[in-house]
Amino acid sequence: MDFSIAQIAAMLGGEVKGEGEEKINMLAKIQDAKKGQLAFLSNPKYEQFIYTTQASAVIVKKDFQAKKELTTNLILVDDPYNSFTQLLEEYHKLVSFQKTGIEEPSFLGDKSTIGKNIYRGAFSYIGHNVKLGDNVKVYPHTYIGDNAIVGNNTILHANVKIYADSRIGNNCVIHAGTVIGSDGFGFAPQADGTYKTIPQLGNVLIEDDVTIGANTVIDCATMFGDSTIIRKGVKLDNLIQIAHNVEVGKNTVIAAQAGISGSTKVGENVMIAGQVGIAGHLVIANRTQVGAQAGISKSVKEEGQQIIGYPAIGIKDYFRSYAIFKKLPDLNDRLRQLEKLQMKDEPDSKS
Amino acid sequence: MDFSIAQIAAMLGGEVKGEGEEKINMLAKIQDAKKGQLAFLSNPKYEQFIYTTQASAVIVKKDFQAKKELTTNLILVDDPYNSFTQLLEEYHKLVSFQKTGIEEPSFLGDKSTIGKNIYRGAFSYIGHNVKLGDNVKVYPHTYIGDNAIVGNNTILHANVKIYADSRIGNNCVIHAGTVIGSDGFGFAPQADGTYKTIPQLGNVLIEDDVTIGANTVIDCATMFGDSTIIRKGVKLDNLIQIAHNVEVGKNTVIAAQAGISGSTKVGENVMIAGQVGIAGHLVIANRTQVGAQAGISKSVKEEGQQIIGYPAIGIKDYFRSYAIFKKLPDLNDRLRQLEKLQMKDEPDSKS
Amino acid sequence: MDFSIAQIAAMLGGEVKGEGEEKINMLAKIQDAKKGQLAFLSNPKYEQFIYTTQASAVIVKKDFQAKKELTTNLILVDDPYNSFTQLLEEYHKLVSFQKTGIEEPSFLGDKSTIGKNIYRGAFSYIGHNVKLGDNVKVYPHTYIGDNAIVGNNTILHANVKIYADSRIGNNCVIHAGTVIGSDGFGFAPQADGTYKTIPQLGNVLIEDDVTIGANTVIDCATMFGDSTIIRKGVKLDNLIQIAHNVEVGKNTVIAAQAGISGSTKVGENVMIAGQVGIAGHLVIANRTQVGAQAGISKSVKEEGQQIIGYPAIGIKDYFRSYAIFKKLPDLNDRLRQLEKLQMKDEPDSKS
Repeated sequence: MDFSIAQIAAMLGGEVKGEGEEKINMLAKIQDAKKGQLAFLSNPKYEQFIYTTQASAVIVKKDFQAKKELTTNLILVDDPYNSFTQLLEEYHKLVSFQKTGIEEPSFLGDKSTIGKNIYRGAFSYIGHNVKLGDNVKVYPHTYIGDNAIVGNNTILHANVKIYADSRIGNNCVIHAGTVIGSDGFGFAPQADGTYKTIPQLGNVLIEDDVTIGANTVIDCATMFGDSTIIRKGVKLDNLIQIAHNVEVGKNTVIAAQAGISGSTKVGENVMIAGQVGIAGHLVIANRTQVGAQAGISKSVKEEGQQIIGYPAIGIKDYFRSYAIFKKLPDLNDRLRQLEKLQMKDEPDSKS
Repeated sequence: MDFSIAQIAAMLGGEVKGEGEEKINMLAKIQDAKKGQLAFLSNPKYEQFIYTTQASAVIVKKDFQAKKELTTNLILVDDPYNSFTQLLEEYHKLVSFQKTGIEEPSFLGDKSTIGKNIYRGAFSYIGHNVKLGDNVKVYPHTYIGDNAIVGNNTILHANVKIYADSRIGNNCVIHAGTVIGSDGFGFAPQADGTYKTIPQLGNVLIEDDVTIGANTVIDCATMFGDSTIIRKGVKLDNLIQIAHNVEVGKNTVIAAQAGISGSTKVGENVMIAGQVGIAGHLVIANRTQVGAQAGISKSVKEEGQQIIGYPAIGIKDYFRSYAIFKKLPDLNDRLRQLEKLQMKDEPDSKS
Repeated sequence: MDFSIAQIAAMLGGEVKGEGEEKINMLAKIQDAKKGQLAFLSNPKYEQFIYTTQASAVIVKKDFQAKKELTTNLILVDDPYNSFTQLLEEYHKLVSFQKTGIEEPSFLGDKSTIGKNIYRGAFSYIGHNVKLGDNVKVYPHTYIGDNAIVGNNTILHANVKIYADSRIGNNCVIHAGTVIGSDGFGFAPQADGTYKTIPQLGNVLIEDDVTIGANTVIDCATMFGDSTIIRKGVKLDNLIQIAHNVEVGKNTVIAAQAGISGSTKVGENVMIAGQVGIAGHLVIANRTQVGAQAGISKSVKEEGQQIIGYPAIGIKDYFRSYAIFKKLPDLNDRLRQLEKLQMKDEPDSKS
């Protein structure tokens, strides 16, 4: 990032008050900003800082009236917070896609095809017959197995591990250490107590606009031609387990350390909190909200429910019951007290 | 895989009906199969597809009688499902062991010895004084520390990390990102509130026929000469924590995201579901079955029990209690009702 | 390690009885020790082994009186257990820091500065403008992003992944597969059900003397200039999730598979057991002890409490309630019994 104040004002449809030529190289909070940096003022609580900030410019509301002398330049806009957020996003995009070219050594297998404007970090491994779209960023130590396909504008951070035959869409981000396509956990018990491995021959299909955190694992489907599927717009956090043949519906969000067992189908716009566990072969209805650490052992059929506990029940029911759970010793004492009185009343009522 | 229909029929002890020369390069489901692929028909529900399939051949029961004209070739066997499963296993073995030779750059330390028919992927690291058996497959980015030993036919997928001095048996499979031999979590509290590290000097011993999922961690034992031990035939899923000095008994199966604390000894043929936690220094009897998300804080002495909850109790007891837990607000109301009636009866009975 | 018995005795301020010239290359337990190894005898229960041990020397208490003939040499000290522990620590330090120099190929970006006595393993990646202190050990496959800083004597085991701009202190140990600085999990819901990524622009700051286990993840802070902070002396186990903008206070210890959600501030000398989950935006008071699998949904204000359960309550309260939980079916029966009696007494009391 290296734009003049005037250029940034133009980008935001705003107006410069002061010097427009100075270069901006960083965004910062108004109380921390230094020379060369750009801040914003939206909440009046922070107005005091605009009179002392070292920022080269501050984004303010059009009608901002300074109460003291200013040493910083201003960019006048309609909504400073929105304008700053817009700049953050542009900056983030620039940073995310700034890496380009090939660092050596890196490995590229036979018959692989590679789009334009790729980054292949040192020690990245791209197997045979792989297809990478345009603007794909393959960070150092990332492994892409044979026959895998990765769409345009997808970022694979350091050390992502993608097994052979996986399919990954456009505009995805996958963070460091995540594994895509490892074997599903399938073993057939034998008469002698040992287990025989059930071959895992399917793959993983990740649609567009999916973000996956760090050290998460998504297993491949069991059968040829079947896929574990992560639908468009899904957001997965860190250290999540997605088992074989699971399908996660569009725009579903799953927080860290949650786990979904084999063949379960999670609906669209579901929200799953941290450390939740979902058993296998279930269907979870659209817009279900699952509270932290819940354990789901039955399908959720009605849409839009909030559930929690193990096995998970309605969130209000859980908390109502838990409120009494906390008083159980008292409840027990009260019951005992009644029994005593009863015995006094009816000395022969208990055998 | 590239066998003729006749060759496959011979492998299965079956008989060809139709052309035997055509080459098969893939297995598929009967409803999806294309030219060059082989399917099977076992369940009569799918018989309709045999008349339209594009498969080059279909495995059917010996006594199969076509009700319409067939355009595909047949392989006649006793049990089509078993025959197909057998082929899947053969195929899986072929695929798993097909990689061979050395991709460069790869690192091989001094005094290491390497068996026959090895695969050493690009960027794989084999330290000093390592011993690898025959047919070992070391995928890209895998790290094997000094003095480690890996047995025959063991597959280390991309980016497995094996610390120095680890011992891994024959016919093991370890998936991407798994760590073997990291330090146990041992710290001695000091008077000033800080912690002093207890040196972790043991290793990890993994016996034969063990499968380990992706991004799992197995810590080394604390003392010289001691090992964290994973016995023959154990199957571990993804994202599991096995702490220092744990021993997991023969043919035990542990599902994803479970964790076993230091020095606990898990018996043989135990089944541990997902997200289970087991405290340290316990003994878990053979054939115990632990339900999802259970927390075990005491040793399980009787064999073959099913337990769940935190702290874990018998599974039937848990669900019986949980059924009442869900009605606790009602229970409380009923109790209050009785108390009211009691007070009416005995106005002086409560102080 | 290759010291003579006399040299080791001098290190420990002890005295040799027997031959001092023999070389020691390993520490071992007295019952397992072989020639060239050094053992200790502290617990009288093990005295029998000193008469048969093959150890080249045994550390014993100054006043030890052999009851039979000895074939091993002795080192006489005040406290054999402490002396042995001291040697274990020295040995561990030697082993941890023995790797040195550069293995090729390894990657070093522009403008990076590197201290003395560094180890850079094969396939390690050090980005641009990175600063590494003295004695830093960068094991194979470790990735250090641009502008990161790593202090003196810090050990980064195989395949640690450190994102750009991270700051890591002195004397830290980070185990294999751990990710530092991945994006926080921030997404703004849009009217059409999709989510927009909130750019994550902060970093991670890890102070001195921090130990982090394997496959753990620490996300970066959201805003420019903000950090997710791990304070001095913190010990983190394996597979832990630390979300964006979390602060973990000095000397806090967190066991495996625990997770802390965004912006939560954990105090000093807190102890968090395995698989605990803590919600976002909370404050956890100093010296809180959190039991295994607890879920914390509210701030903990009073220092030094022990809590457990979901939502977490006082540990004694939890276990008292859980004791009754286990008897709920019986409680329910007793209540029903009373109701029956009541109905008999007051047939018109229930509507």
